[in-house]
Amino acid sequence: MREVFQSELAEVQSRLVEISRLVAISIDKATQAFNESDVGLAEEAITADERIDELTGELDELAITILARQQPVARDLRIVVSALRISASLERMGDLSTHIAQLTRYRFPDKVIPKALRSTFAQMGAHDVSIAKMLTELLTTEDMKLAEAIRREDDTVDALHVSVFDAVLGDSWKGQAADTVDATLASRYHERFADHAVSIAKKVQYLGTGAWHEDINA
Amino acid sequence: MREVFQSELAEVQSRLVEISRLVAISIDKATQAFNESDVGLAEEAITADERIDELTGELDELAITILARQQPVARDLRIVVSALRISASLERMGDLSTHIAQLTRYRFPDKVIPKALRSTFAQMGAHDVSIAKMLTELLTTEDMKLAEAIRREDDTVDALHVSVFDAVLGDSWKGQAADTVDATLASRYHERFADHAVSIAKKVQYLGTGAWHEDINA
Repeated sequence: MREVFQSELAEVQSRLVEISRLVAISIDKATQAFNESDVGLAEEAITADERIDELTGELDELAITILARQQPVARDLRIVVSALRISASLERMGDLSTHIAQLTRYRFPDKVIPKALRSTFAQMGAHDVSIAKMLTELLTTEDMKLAEAIRREDDTVDALHVSVFDAVLGDSWKGQAADTVDATLASRYHERFADHAVSIAKKVQYLGTGAWHEDINA
Repeated sequence: MREVFQSELAEVQSRLVEISRLVAISIDKATQAFNESDVGLAEEAITADERIDELTGELDELAITILARQQPVARDLRIVVSALRISASLERMGDLSTHIAQLTRYRFPDKVIPKALRSTFAQMGAHDVSIAKMLTELLTTEDMKLAEAIRREDDTVDALHVSVFDAVLGDSWKGQAADTVDATLASRYHERFADHAVSIAKKVQYLGTGAWHEDINA
């Protein structure tokens, strides 16, 4: 029974890695589409989200089946419950990536972001992509250094998020209301994307350290 | 064993109702604070969120204990997993309510929203409060008519959300960039709050109808 359980857990883990990989591809396409007004790439990111939703749904069903069949307790139980939560965050990261891609599509052929903010969003996008790739690596290797690195990059994304508002509210901002709306939403989506990665990293860290209680809702 | 399980499930339900009641009070205070620039009420909503976070954390621990001790299968198992998901959505609704209250605090003593949008936000706020109250009622009574009513009110919130963008992007918008940012964020928070209520309502509906698979990620 224990052996079956271990192989089922390995299956859960490899599916989380697979979904995380798709999320990383999606945010890469979405942020590139956003920064270069590439509507074709935006469409690809939007379409790919269906697959992410499908895979997270299947993973949730697998986790529930494992709970029913294996009746895990203690740490094993918490691993399966964590997988359900990680799956929910990955699904949400896919949604946020889609939202970024959708902003591109709405404004096409115009660029979403005025010149003054292009470098800031290019940086935010690059950090989100880097975070998503590290997350895939963290889920694969459980190397806790990656969890710390994700937190650090999230701090940078938070600082960039604040700098977007500083720019938009500053005297030199020449954007129209539409630019302000887009910058506000886009910045929020980028920031929430990184937040979810941190939340997943904390769960993986807990599983490695046993500090569940503290971090379960973080 | 079955009897113990039933009484534990009743405990889970009554805790969900209690948290939902606190979320309803929180959104009531936050939207009132937001619409009337009442920074005292805003502080109350922000402080109350700590209690919501605490209670959802405790509920999650209870649910995990039930999974470990009672080893539920089939529908019983899905009820407990649903409780974990409902708890996560309630926790998020508390956060969104806090975000609305925080906007009030940032701008105080100025009003957050310029005159042109005050009626729209008063309506959005009233709908969010109504949705939160219906949600408490739905979790208490499992009366499915309430789930439908929540979906309908969410459609109204979505329409109001779109109308905020129409106003901000229209020729007659005279707001500064700060007004545009606040309107964008506030509208998004109100809309997401209602979304989470719909997501919870679907889970309750599933538990009543057995249509889990379809709605688990909805």
